[in-house]
Amino acid sequence: MVFADRLMEAIRAKDSRCIVGLDPRVDQMPAFIQGRGDACAAITGFHKLVLDAVADLVPAVKPQLAFFEQYGVVGMQAFENTVRAAKQRGLLVIADGKRNDISSTAEAYANAYLGGDGFDCDALTVTPYLGRDSLMPFVEACDKHGKGLFVVLKTSNPGSKDFEDQALAETGRPLYEKIAGVLNELGDPLIGQSGYSSIGAVIGATFPEEGRRLRSLMPKALILVPGYGAQGGSARAAAECFNEDGLGAIVNSSRGITYAFGDTGISRDAFVREVRENTRRMIDEVNAAAIPADRRTLLRSPVLPRA
Amino acid sequence: MVFADRLMEAIRAKDSRCIVGLDPRVDQMPAFIQGRGDACAAITGFHKLVLDAVADLVPAVKPQLAFFEQYGVVGMQAFENTVRAAKQRGLLVIADGKRNDISSTAEAYANAYLGGDGFDCDALTVTPYLGRDSLMPFVEACDKHGKGLFVVLKTSNPGSKDFEDQALAETGRPLYEKIAGVLNELGDPLIGQSGYSSIGAVIGATFPEEGRRLRSLMPKALILVPGYGAQGGSARAAAECFNEDGLGAIVNSSRGITYAFGDTGISRDAFVREVRENTRRMIDEVNAAAIPADRRTLLRSPVLPRA
Repeated sequence: MVFADRLMEAIRAKDSRCIVGLDPRVDQMPAFIQGRGDACAAITGFHKLVLDAVADLVPAVKPQLAFFEQYGVVGMQAFENTVRAAKQRGLLVIADGKRNDISSTAEAYANAYLGGDGFDCDALTVTPYLGRDSLMPFVEACDKHGKGLFVVLKTSNPGSKDFEDQALAETGRPLYEKIAGVLNELGDPLIGQSGYSSIGAVIGATFPEEGRRLRSLMPKALILVPGYGAQGGSARAAAECFNEDGLGAIVNSSRGITYAFGDTGISRDAFVREVRENTRRMIDEVNAAAIPADRRTLLRSPVLPRA
Repeated sequence: MVFADRLMEAIRAKDSRCIVGLDPRVDQMPAFIQGRGDACAAITGFHKLVLDAVADLVPAVKPQLAFFEQYGVVGMQAFENTVRAAKQRGLLVIADGKRNDISSTAEAYANAYLGGDGFDCDALTVTPYLGRDSLMPFVEACDKHGKGLFVVLKTSNPGSKDFEDQALAETGRPLYEKIAGVLNELGDPLIGQSGYSSIGAVIGATFPEEGRRLRSLMPKALILVPGYGAQGGSARAAAECFNEDGLGAIVNSSRGITYAFGDTGISRDAFVREVRENTRRMIDEVNAAAIPADRRTLLRSPVLPRA
């Protein structure tokens, strides 16, 4: 099944439009995890606990590569372990790498994260600055291997106004809208049976107006929405990235789910409970904001009821 | 010593404005290397040979992360080995990763490649799309650790016209020129005794007109010029990225140096000779194109004469 359909199926089955970001910060992990040997063991162990806690609640997880890479080779081993553990628990894995390059180098990145070798994730985030031909090797890998792509359009930081928002001379419209048009073209051939394309976009939860505009310009794109919670984006703002039917986007939270427990002396059971409760609360908030009232029961899966 | 000064000193000492790109492709390596165990052993062994061959000829090498990442964890181990081997031979290491993200994630990338932990390279390539604040954690890491940054401005691919070249409504000038202005501001506090800043730019060798224009807009930036050779850029075109004094840029070649040997049955000695000759030829071509005739002998170092 193609990525878009796999993600849509999981969203419907779990009645959940939220994903959990995995940003390893060993020095902020609970003490009972930090004591577990090297960084690789700590990160892997921490993520297995988180994955066990959220596997039935969310369709996907989003490991952030930067936080693994800062631990060097052992960090990348922990990334591989985390990807494997997530898949074993039936979760889709969106590698957040913001990668991009040209020609054979873009092919190598696609091979690293979307091919059968390397790290073999389900989807990858990429940046668009280098142009349409820089995205093609990723799109081709998605087509060939049933994988997905989320192209950065409008990020949640204040500085996203600097270049992303620049009005272009040819249209008077922001650069990100031009890129959205290219993504529609690239994504069209990869629209699955769900009606969504495996070529999606990243739009920060802190810019609801831009989210609404881009949602209308890209009705078939799956939108990955970071910036919820710790970065200041609300469920209401994130909801602008959803279609009228309450679908078409996934909202990510990282720190707000996994590092909100406060005291590192927390017990294993309390940590699992905390992660699970944080995730449930976010799911409820996003569902309430994103799903029109008359559709709420229709979308809720009868197979996997939430308590 | 800050990165810009270390690079400039090495350029002068070796009278060389060229760097060698390290893009591991195990299946294209000489047979005597491919037989050396796993991908990590093959890549490390291949690069040690290349590094031995070019250590006295070039100031720096540029390992391309994508090609390591596609081999998974063992590829990243090979990357770590390659970085260490290059430093042991007195070469500067520019990690070509085209990384970027926002806030704490950008800090994590900076920590991964420009900090003292992680992979501890001398410089990193990054993309600018996410805005000025996305670049700041990298700039701060450069300042703190004496490292360098090369920000992608105008790449060598045809598709670089799609977004990089877009004329902006506010100025009628291309987006990359606006970014160049921001880079000047970010780079100013990091200008070393050499007169160059540790915050540099990436400009492809295939667009000499754009190179000339950007060179004039960023006189203090060190420019990394990919696209020479295999991608169609000539020494003459690359020369547009140099200042009048024949300095201020480094030209990269990867495949044209390390995979141009043809027959994978090549012997070890012949391979080393080939890599060395390819490098010497490129250095001579770039020097001839970049250095004004009246300055050639002045720049040549008396300490390390080239045969």
